[in-house]
Amino acid sequence: MTVQLQDIRAAHDRIRDKIHRTPVMRSASLNDLAGAQLFFKCENLQKAGAFKTRGAVNAVFGLTEEEARPGVVTHSSGNHAAALARAATLRGIPAHIVMPKTAPAVKVASVRRYGGKIVFCEPTLEARESTSQRLISNTGATFIHPYDDVRVIAGQGTMAVELLEDIPDLELILCPVGGGGQLSGVAVASKGISPKIQVMAVEPSRADDAARSFAAGRLIPSVDPRTIADGLLTSLSDRTFALIQKYVDGIVTVSEEGIVNAMRTIWEVMKLVVEPSGAVSYAGVIERRVQVKGKRVGIILSGGNLDLDVLPWQIR
Amino acid sequence: MTVQLQDIRAAHDRIRDKIHRTPVMRSASLNDLAGAQLFFKCENLQKAGAFKTRGAVNAVFGLTEEEARPGVVTHSSGNHAAALARAATLRGIPAHIVMPKTAPAVKVASVRRYGGKIVFCEPTLEARESTSQRLISNTGATFIHPYDDVRVIAGQGTMAVELLEDIPDLELILCPVGGGGQLSGVAVASKGISPKIQVMAVEPSRADDAARSFAAGRLIPSVDPRTIADGLLTSLSDRTFALIQKYVDGIVTVSEEGIVNAMRTIWEVMKLVVEPSGAVSYAGVIERRVQVKGKRVGIILSGGNLDLDVLPWQIR
Repeated sequence: MTVQLQDIRAAHDRIRDKIHRTPVMRSASLNDLAGAQLFFKCENLQKAGAFKTRGAVNAVFGLTEEEARPGVVTHSSGNHAAALARAATLRGIPAHIVMPKTAPAVKVASVRRYGGKIVFCEPTLEARESTSQRLISNTGATFIHPYDDVRVIAGQGTMAVELLEDIPDLELILCPVGGGGQLSGVAVASKGISPKIQVMAVEPSRADDAARSFAAGRLIPSVDPRTIADGLLTSLSDRTFALIQKYVDGIVTVSEEGIVNAMRTIWEVMKLVVEPSGAVSYAGVIERRVQVKGKRVGIILSGGNLDLDVLPWQIR
Repeated sequence: MTVQLQDIRAAHDRIRDKIHRTPVMRSASLNDLAGAQLFFKCENLQKAGAFKTRGAVNAVFGLTEEEARPGVVTHSSGNHAAALARAATLRGIPAHIVMPKTAPAVKVASVRRYGGKIVFCEPTLEARESTSQRLISNTGATFIHPYDDVRVIAGQGTMAVELLEDIPDLELILCPVGGGGQLSGVAVASKGISPKIQVMAVEPSRADDAARSFAAGRLIPSVDPRTIADGLLTSLSDRTFALIQKYVDGIVTVSEEGIVNAMRTIWEVMKLVVEPSGAVSYAGVIERRVQVKGKRVGIILSGGNLDLDVLPWQIR
């Protein structure tokens, strides 16, 4: 099963009254710096603080009554977990969230705040998967993968529908890539709406499975990725990789320093709190890894959830 | 000379194409916490990062050609200085900014970036005033006070015109108070547009000259105010106090801890960078110093300029 523009339009109709239509923001200073017209799609201002809300709401509200009743399950400690908990609460069904018992308190609190039922497990992939399987068998709940799921991909694509409604004449869209759910949704929507638009992905060089896979023409999973952009540690799936190969024009990588600089610049100049993963697209501009000069460029700020106790530029 | 609604409307016509019409943002989580409908007027997203841009642009563009030619002068090391520098550069005239030689590098850099000519002086009020006087005598430039100036007050009032255009049925507006330029402009505009609206000021308890003056019915200047809300250290002038007595319904004070909590909450939940002074209105809600329950409340987030190297909650 794959995803087409019509699925994304259907997702948008399904979710639009349950999410924010996030604003597109601009900065004269950052335009001057880049020599381009930059249009920031502010998914950090999305409900629950990240774009993951779109895919989660689409997946949860796409279930039949019968499917929905036993609830949903996922294993994630990040934005998808909080978004899925919120979506399930909105529909009045349980969300079982499998989290490693080492998960940061702030992430546990966030899932709880949105009404998720947390099931702790050992901090290994095996434990996460077996715990999820057991929950599914015991409860009949539906597993909602953070990105390898057509309903989730279609939901994420809705951000590009809104961006291109607001700014129809974009020439280039920059999108971060981790597991590829957001990127593939954005690429399918953008190319479907405007075939001439260029879609470029930006990835941390220390978690560069997508860039290497794209160059090699075959899926090369990450081995021990380490980046401050903790939302982008995951590897592509066959499904997201196939869509990316078909619809994405290129993937560039950025340094850790570039990510931190991009994040701080957005905070200082635009007064917007973005998380490291959320600033990765703009890092591609700062590090001049993509040619933006003179263009009208959409930049996705994907999320704004992070621990404010210590900031990345204070760690070095 | 005083300020009336018509002056504020004229200011709005004069400045609207030179400033941002800042968005009004909402948060379901903060509404739930407060038991009220909160509407945040985001002056942290204003050009140059603070509402001061409104008053500065109105003052600079209100000058005749002949008055404007020699430029403008102010002594300030804060948001007014940067805003005045930007406004003067926009009109193509010089802005002479008198700053104490002890001013933080980040503030010096900001004024320079906007094209201001900095004149350093000793860090005393006497030195600031005598240096300004000398500049005025030598250059013929016009002094633009940060708040004790009808053009500046009228400019600041334009934020309330926009807020009430966007959300006409507000019952209460919360506004910080330092020198009173913003508060008096906002109060004149709000009461002029909607006489039944309640306008409450919020002030740091460690810089509470406005609250004490309001209670006593006579101007009581601050003695050695110390607060993290460094934009609110100044004392009212006769002019701003007269307007506040006439149009403001009450002044409450908030603790330093309340200001820091309010600021952090806005960063975490709304993903907006506000400076301590900018979070003072919302601190009045957090510390329950104003009765908001069940009301539709406008909250002014006045600015977002601060040094990101060390954050207030990291100091304690």
